[in-house]
Amino acid sequence: MNDALRNRIFELRDLAGVINLATWDQETYMPKKAEAVRAAQLGTLQGLYHERLVDPRLGEWIERETPATPDERAMLRVLKRERERAVRLPSRLVKAIAEGQAHALSAWREARTQRSFKVFQPKLEVLVNLRREQADALGHDGERYDALLENYEPGMKVARLTPVLSSLVKKLEPLIATIEARGPKRDALAGKRFPVEEQWAFTMELLPAMGFDLEAGRQDRSIHPFSNGLAPTDVRLTTRVFEDQPFSAIFGTLHEGGHGLYEQGFSPDHFRTPLAQSPSMGLHESQSRLWENLVGRSRPFWTFFFPKLKARFPSQLADVSLDDFLASVNKVERSFVRVEADEVTYNLHIALRYELELGLVRGSLSVAELEDAWNQKTKALLGLEVKQPVEGVLQDIHWAWGEFGYFPTYALGNLYGATLFATARRELPSLDDELARGHLLGLLGWLREKIHRHGSRLDAEELVRQATGHGLRDDDFIAGLTTRY
Amino acid sequence: MNDALRNRIFELRDLAGVINLATWDQETYMPKKAEAVRAAQLGTLQGLYHERLVDPRLGEWIERETPATPDERAMLRVLKRERERAVRLPSRLVKAIAEGQAHALSAWREARTQRSFKVFQPKLEVLVNLRREQADALGHDGERYDALLENYEPGMKVARLTPVLSSLVKKLEPLIATIEARGPKRDALAGKRFPVEEQWAFTMELLPAMGFDLEAGRQDRSIHPFSNGLAPTDVRLTTRVFEDQPFSAIFGTLHEGGHGLYEQGFSPDHFRTPLAQSPSMGLHESQSRLWENLVGRSRPFWTFFFPKLKARFPSQLADVSLDDFLASVNKVERSFVRVEADEVTYNLHIALRYELELGLVRGSLSVAELEDAWNQKTKALLGLEVKQPVEGVLQDIHWAWGEFGYFPTYALGNLYGATLFATARRELPSLDDELARGHLLGLLGWLREKIHRHGSRLDAEELVRQATGHGLRDDDFIAGLTTRY
Repeated sequence: MNDALRNRIFELRDLAGVINLATWDQETYMPKKAEAVRAAQLGTLQGLYHERLVDPRLGEWIERETPATPDERAMLRVLKRERERAVRLPSRLVKAIAEGQAHALSAWREARTQRSFKVFQPKLEVLVNLRREQADALGHDGERYDALLENYEPGMKVARLTPVLSSLVKKLEPLIATIEARGPKRDALAGKRFPVEEQWAFTMELLPAMGFDLEAGRQDRSIHPFSNGLAPTDVRLTTRVFEDQPFSAIFGTLHEGGHGLYEQGFSPDHFRTPLAQSPSMGLHESQSRLWENLVGRSRPFWTFFFPKLKARFPSQLADVSLDDFLASVNKVERSFVRVEADEVTYNLHIALRYELELGLVRGSLSVAELEDAWNQKTKALLGLEVKQPVEGVLQDIHWAWGEFGYFPTYALGNLYGATLFATARRELPSLDDELARGHLLGLLGWLREKIHRHGSRLDAEELVRQATGHGLRDDDFIAGLTTRY
Repeated sequence: MNDALRNRIFELRDLAGVINLATWDQETYMPKKAEAVRAAQLGTLQGLYHERLVDPRLGEWIERETPATPDERAMLRVLKRERERAVRLPSRLVKAIAEGQAHALSAWREARTQRSFKVFQPKLEVLVNLRREQADALGHDGERYDALLENYEPGMKVARLTPVLSSLVKKLEPLIATIEARGPKRDALAGKRFPVEEQWAFTMELLPAMGFDLEAGRQDRSIHPFSNGLAPTDVRLTTRVFEDQPFSAIFGTLHEGGHGLYEQGFSPDHFRTPLAQSPSMGLHESQSRLWENLVGRSRPFWTFFFPKLKARFPSQLADVSLDDFLASVNKVERSFVRVEADEVTYNLHIALRYELELGLVRGSLSVAELEDAWNQKTKALLGLEVKQPVEGVLQDIHWAWGEFGYFPTYALGNLYGATLFATARRELPSLDDELARGHLLGLLGWLREKIHRHGSRLDAEELVRQATGHGLRDDDFIAGLTTRY
């Protein structure tokens, strides 16, 4: 490969890594008063990244290059796709979106304080229009939303996604009705206090057991848990710890740990190149959901780890059996707020958001109608009457960030994760026994081989098909829930 | 000011801030296996900084600009000086120095392991030659060392520095003899254990008392204490804590806190410009030495803080009086290792290094002769017989980094600090009383007014002269020591 091209590829990845460092620091250790200067520093780094990416010389280097290996071909394809999308955006529009986001974000905060969607509405209108304009600049075949979806889930289209999500909703409804008919379960942990230092120590025991390399990554605390891959040898996770909600830290760590294992699992041959990243947000989410829900809420997993947890909290868990504990971990309940939803009802929250944002981007729904539409759909899908916009249309930050096309990736993560886990269980017949002995590395090895080491060589659905024989589908997800509930 | 010029100035400062963030993280929280990728990221950032600095358009913008205010004039002067020095260095030489440093650093480590200067010698020879070449490329009036000194202490020259340091050595010798004649002092803390958590808590009590704003900065632990200003609103300090050496953490915090107060004290008008920095390493060091030695080893300071320390370590300090404690804090003893030297003998270590590196850069001393020369000078200046190169010529990392011209700034810091403190005591007649009541903010206010807020508007000696009526001199330093010892 041409030296200038290779150096530019390295430079772009290094800049992306440093942007991630600055973002990680912002959410963990940065002093409060540094907010303004950090925003400026991030603006400068992102500006440099964009400038180096759209540089016409880079376009020429890519065109002139004859890839010597399949990896080089894949790398150039990924880089070219990112570059061409960046080139198509006029800098006026990029700037307007950045400003629109800043305004919408503060209006959203104010709207939550005032408990009024009206405060947010005009700023959100501006952002929706800008994103529609962006979609047209990026190009599409008549379905604007596809152009936005491509930001998070390259290759995915509305025409493919809509029937999958509709089918999923149809299958979830009777399942939820059956679970609810059994009546509410007792939460054996409710009202108890779990000292935060012991909770933290337990999460720091989970990470190496999952195979997370604490010499190539770390865990810290933040207000909202996240994971951030500065490089495959430098993966930062965070979790949050509440004394009265031990599941927050435990499932936060399992979730972010799943993301982190993926980031640590890219092939050393791809380091400092765009292949050392996931091909999509949905596939990334499949890894976190797999560890959080399919491993982390399972009986085999807790067969090994519940005694360990009990050893840390002997008085709190003295009268709690493994069955009681699993019932608490797997409680199903329709609720207003997505981030608090259980594994079963979660995708209804996504379907609701997907339908609404699709309408906004298509123009068939106006921002003025959004709150009513939200409340009606909540009634129809979840059977709940929204009382407060804070528990309704104002609950998520994503639209205030101007992110449209992001929500569906959460559902894709659930579906891909289920298909991968079902295949892993078939191909590793002793997997449940291994989990019950606390051996999680067999599963990790399978994920490394089938998913992680490939990085961005293939688009998400293609990679999942290669690993499992199936593309996007809800069968494994529904079958898994049906067996467990 | 022209928008393009202003934006470039902001961009350069933002990049410098991010380089500092990446360096801070490297020494505090970065996982071990991230070393290689961090080196690459730092290389990329430094390369971008250099490229944007030497950009010919920036040269034109500076030339075309007519400064509207004295601040703008000063800003352009500082930027132009930095840019012209960068432009004069051929990129071949910059690269050769970076490689030479990497080789010398690993040879130095190996030499320490093998306890043999010979292992280090050939790599050091390469570096000395490269730095001589660099000095010639930068330009000088026949004194090569001046061009290197300019990297750390703009405006300072050998012709000014040599007589000051010679005079200092001459005055120190009888002072040390007098102190030694009194016989050794008992160290009342020797052999005791001070739990690290309590030590840490004490340092975190000192910082806000000094006026360090913990919302615009923070303190962490690292192997070697350092301070790092990402921006005036984001100043990172570190210290280290040893159970059997409580002075390490306390004086580490006072020292780095002194640097940190300076970084937090730049004028908000200068944020994101090259004026929001110290004009020299020596002046920066004056602030750390002032807080560490002139405040932190004084009777008034400990009159207030010793009871606080005693409250944290009641059993360890039960039988220690304030006088005993001050005697321990102010112990004077000739020793081999600079970083462990007391305030009185410290400058002899600097004089020794200055004379040797001046000889290397001038060419009057060869690297092959360096070890012998070191040992002879140690005998002459400190009266000690070097037994081990690890305690002699191999003790400091600076030459392995290729830093020649850096050591004198430590002595300049001692001298400037003493002159500033003497003036502050004259102008603030109740200063000792304030210190004895734990009120440190009066002194900080004086330093803010006289030094901090000016940033790089003036060169160091000029700024000190404006603040005190005197430039570089040893009178106040010697007078201070004579009074206290």
